[in-house]
Amino acid sequence: MQVSTERLFTEARSHNGWLDRPVPDALLRELYELLRWGPTSANCSPLRVLFVRSAEAKAKLVPLMAPGNREKTAGAPVVAILGMDLGFPDTLPKLFPHTDARSWFAGDEAKIAETAFRNGSLQGGYLILAARALGLDCGPMSGFDAKAVDAAFWGGTQVKTNFVCGLGHGDPAKLFGRSPRLSFDEACRVL
Amino acid sequence: MQVSTERLFTEARSHNGWLDRPVPDALLRELYELLRWGPTSANCSPLRVLFVRSAEAKAKLVPLMAPGNREKTAGAPVVAILGMDLGFPDTLPKLFPHTDARSWFAGDEAKIAETAFRNGSLQGGYLILAARALGLDCGPMSGFDAKAVDAAFWGGTQVKTNFVCGLGHGDPAKLFGRSPRLSFDEACRVL
Repeated sequence: MQVSTERLFTEARSHNGWLDRPVPDALLRELYELLRWGPTSANCSPLRVLFVRSAEAKAKLVPLMAPGNREKTAGAPVVAILGMDLGFPDTLPKLFPHTDARSWFAGDEAKIAETAFRNGSLQGGYLILAARALGLDCGPMSGFDAKAVDAAFWGGTQVKTNFVCGLGHGDPAKLFGRSPRLSFDEACRVL
Repeated sequence: MQVSTERLFTEARSHNGWLDRPVPDALLRELYELLRWGPTSANCSPLRVLFVRSAEAKAKLVPLMAPGNREKTAGAPVVAILGMDLGFPDTLPKLFPHTDARSWFAGDEAKIAETAFRNGSLQGGYLILAARALGLDCGPMSGFDAKAVDAAFWGGTQVKTNFVCGLGHGDPAKLFGRSPRLSFDEACRVL
């Protein structure tokens, strides 16, 4: 499938308001089918996603968001809760079968947490760009009560919430002016 | 510019060996020009990149990599050291000018570190996919002596190394067999 770098990067915006256009389950499956191939260290793939769509699940999530994020969470056709599974070492015999990668993490909670956070966030970046490739807009949000979202949505698992992302077709009328970015020379050097 | 989702996701591979084809500085600037537009919370943009190309800089980096990563680091036309700047709050008056976002972080080192890690890793995902969009292959690596790389490359700054990524044109003959991924039903649910 062809997509433009304008749609992926240079002309894409984070959205705050959403058009009344549906996001079918089949598209969420297409989204995962793209993003899952992005690289992670030792293929550890710690990202777990809850796609919140129903009124019941929305009613559970909205009050746990920061006040400024509630209306956009309520209004999005689908809101993805991106979690990272601290139990990922148990998937390594399947995901990285040619060596005993699980043993690299045994008993090392700090290494597990760091690996899950780095790679779960990388996969979050893949999710955002894969959604854009499929014609969706994104509205990523970090402002919410993380402990409460963990308890309400990931109970009985080792998954911790990383960030939350509205998915749908954004309303261009609700966009703010675009903020600047750092220049190459402010952020990079060639050595 | 048009790019295919096969090149970005489903047919892309992490590379271990590199063809003798150059990666000009102009392409590194194009790479940053794409990735810098990807979203970060409060537009904080903590990613900093050192593109290691010269023999001197390579000689400094290679011995700090884990033994299994040394040959592929030495052989890549360019190796990006992706850092995250813990001093990012000082850029917020410029990057997020409509409110006093710097004050959200004042004195809260844990929040600064978490925000830098999450958003610097998101930007790492954007870098990998932007490189692929430009026809480059990637070889991301987490195995290195992070404290030593910090000291050797980011001295006198608040930047910490996140991960390292070879950039160039991969040698398909050096690829391993592709590892499986989790299915939608193993990693996701619709609520």
